[in-house]
Amino acid sequence: MTAPPPNLRIDGQRLWRSLMAMAEIGATPKGGVCRLAASDQDRAARDRFVAWSRDAGLAVRVDRLGNIFARRAGRNDALPPVVIGSHLDTQPTGGKFDGAYGVLAAFEVVRTLDDARIATEAPLEVVVWTNEEGSRFAPACVGSGVYAGVFAADDSLGRADRDGKTLGAELARIGYAGPAPIGGRVGAYLEAHIEQGPILEAEGKTIGVVTGAQGIRWYDVTLEGQAAHAGTTPMNRRRDALQGAAALVAAIEVIALESAPSAVATVGALGVAPNSRNTIVGSVALTVDLRHPDAAVLAAMDRAFRDRAAAIAHARRLELAIDEVWNFPPPTFDRACVAAVRQAAARAGFSHRDIVSGAGHDACYMARIAPTAMVFVPCADGISHNEIEAATPADLAAGCDVLLGAVLALANQSDR
Amino acid sequence: MTAPPPNLRIDGQRLWRSLMAMAEIGATPKGGVCRLAASDQDRAARDRFVAWSRDAGLAVRVDRLGNIFARRAGRNDALPPVVIGSHLDTQPTGGKFDGAYGVLAAFEVVRTLDDARIATEAPLEVVVWTNEEGSRFAPACVGSGVYAGVFAADDSLGRADRDGKTLGAELARIGYAGPAPIGGRVGAYLEAHIEQGPILEAEGKTIGVVTGAQGIRWYDVTLEGQAAHAGTTPMNRRRDALQGAAALVAAIEVIALESAPSAVATVGALGVAPNSRNTIVGSVALTVDLRHPDAAVLAAMDRAFRDRAAAIAHARRLELAIDEVWNFPPPTFDRACVAAVRQAAARAGFSHRDIVSGAGHDACYMARIAPTAMVFVPCADGISHNEIEAATPADLAAGCDVLLGAVLALANQSDR
Repeated sequence: MTAPPPNLRIDGQRLWRSLMAMAEIGATPKGGVCRLAASDQDRAARDRFVAWSRDAGLAVRVDRLGNIFARRAGRNDALPPVVIGSHLDTQPTGGKFDGAYGVLAAFEVVRTLDDARIATEAPLEVVVWTNEEGSRFAPACVGSGVYAGVFAADDSLGRADRDGKTLGAELARIGYAGPAPIGGRVGAYLEAHIEQGPILEAEGKTIGVVTGAQGIRWYDVTLEGQAAHAGTTPMNRRRDALQGAAALVAAIEVIALESAPSAVATVGALGVAPNSRNTIVGSVALTVDLRHPDAAVLAAMDRAFRDRAAAIAHARRLELAIDEVWNFPPPTFDRACVAAVRQAAARAGFSHRDIVSGAGHDACYMARIAPTAMVFVPCADGISHNEIEAATPADLAAGCDVLLGAVLALANQSDR
Repeated sequence: MTAPPPNLRIDGQRLWRSLMAMAEIGATPKGGVCRLAASDQDRAARDRFVAWSRDAGLAVRVDRLGNIFARRAGRNDALPPVVIGSHLDTQPTGGKFDGAYGVLAAFEVVRTLDDARIATEAPLEVVVWTNEEGSRFAPACVGSGVYAGVFAADDSLGRADRDGKTLGAELARIGYAGPAPIGGRVGAYLEAHIEQGPILEAEGKTIGVVTGAQGIRWYDVTLEGQAAHAGTTPMNRRRDALQGAAALVAAIEVIALESAPSAVATVGALGVAPNSRNTIVGSVALTVDLRHPDAAVLAAMDRAFRDRAAAIAHARRLELAIDEVWNFPPPTFDRACVAAVRQAAARAGFSHRDIVSGAGHDACYMARIAPTAMVFVPCADGISHNEIEAATPADLAAGCDVLLGAVLALANQSDR
């Protein structure tokens, strides 16, 4: 084994081939991927990853949550590992890159080091986290969340899908309820991912240096009025729940614009009852999603939302109920890890900018127990969670090169 | 037979018993009625009405559309009849009074005349129209609509329910595809009905003298934007179809208020896609219902709706499609018939006010071919199309007394 040359690069074509080979598993007719957590497709993807890892001489272990760790020994193998990876499960109509890119870029880093016969001081572990998407089993990011102590293992394994099958039973069925204990010291955690947003593409930047992620607050809201005949009920006697909801939807947008440009706020789901053309809407159920990278601003957005919802309900004589279903404080990534990513991008000559992740990632939970950073690459039109999700081989290779540079810096730190 | 005494009154208790006996057929556990058109329950209700009519010596005929006419001869039986009635079918979760009241009030008028041995100059016919509700077979008011030449008989009989059964086949099955020809001259048409709105109750009036009905325009609207990740898509890059829909819902209310107090405008049905908490809404489908008794105002409301929808779609970069699915011009009832109702209410000493029907009724189609008017009585909280629909025996009796007075006036007009 030798010292890394300054111009060491990953093999972009090999990375692309790995991505396309993985995308065959659960491939959909529209060019996407359906690989729900702990499904037969998830098993096939895991099997492929494990086979590749064993071929590469990595030591594979699987924990009770089904998290897979493929380990490359370090010169000082007692050091806590630099863990790199992401997930292989997808949305029901997901794409080829969300998750799989982070796993296979990490694996490409290991292959590149092997080819160049370069050892690292600390060991490396390529990780595949279980059930990042949360599509089949709630909540999302369960594998990393349990690892980081956010969720209890038994509770997470007991969560059932729509058919009543639990994550634990399904992991056992597919052979990935492993014997390894959950958790352990991590020297640093790095994750490469497509941006899932439009910013890098719009600004012509190749690399996003992810400094943290947005805090997220989720609410279920109901507005109750009075269903009544649309023809016979004068406007001034109505208690139209949809009019209240429309005012609230508009207010949600205003709340985001008041904290521009970092805030986003969304009503993504909305249902009305009785949902009949000639009947005034009696009740509306809707969701609210507020995000901001600063916890104080997010708290102010929460207050503004509650105040305006109450004012709207009062003015329109509606009954309002707000149930906060998730409050995820904004994670801030480790300054040194982020710097390692930024320096790796600069050294490799890629255009880059600091960016805050709008989506949740396994890295957000890992940041609670380990120095953590992420590398973003552009995706076409910012579209993700969609079968048309796309990224260029050049950008994907660039992100992997940056991951390589950051891994080398963090795994060879003299102070470890 | 004698001349009617000036203080002739119907038997309110007998009317109530008739209503309660009819409400047994299709009774629901929550106190309502489910008696869909041409169902077994509809047959049972029709059979009961026909049996009562034959017991009363009326001549019953049924036409191809299943409309039932129970005829009481006039002194001059060659005169066109005064037709009075309504319908016996109900909404799936309907009440005891919508429709049944108009039929049984008409029958109570005939019984009252029989008891008092009073003949009318023109014959009277109590009518039961087929499929007024339109719940099982579209459209609504088919029996009267075909009678009035609005719909073609064969087309209406060929309309299928969700199970593929046609109205014609179901009428034959229940024994109500009759031999009588459809149509015929009508001297006057009168219909008593619960208001199905809150105005009479709120103003403490017993009788609504119905001068006409609102014109109705129905639209299906779609707004298409771009579904995208709720966390990663900045506010200024969004094409959020729900934000456009919220602005349109608010505009619809404004359009009604601009033509206050007679205009009403409603978005009753609305659905969003993909309808996921953390995905920006990509498309919205919603309905718009505009009503006004003046066709010119209704046309202005139509223009305002189209203009504002286009402006909203343009400003938010959404694709807009508007499909007008129904345009029902406002019917105006016959001045002399309306006056007969108003005078009958005044003579009987009931508080009354002129009112425009917000709902559609068989009378709206009959107004196209015959002098027509309606009598409204209050219903509790203005609620209808609901199992909790309620009206007081006193109000129902009052409306029936007014119907009696108007029938006597119209059936004994010297100029007929």
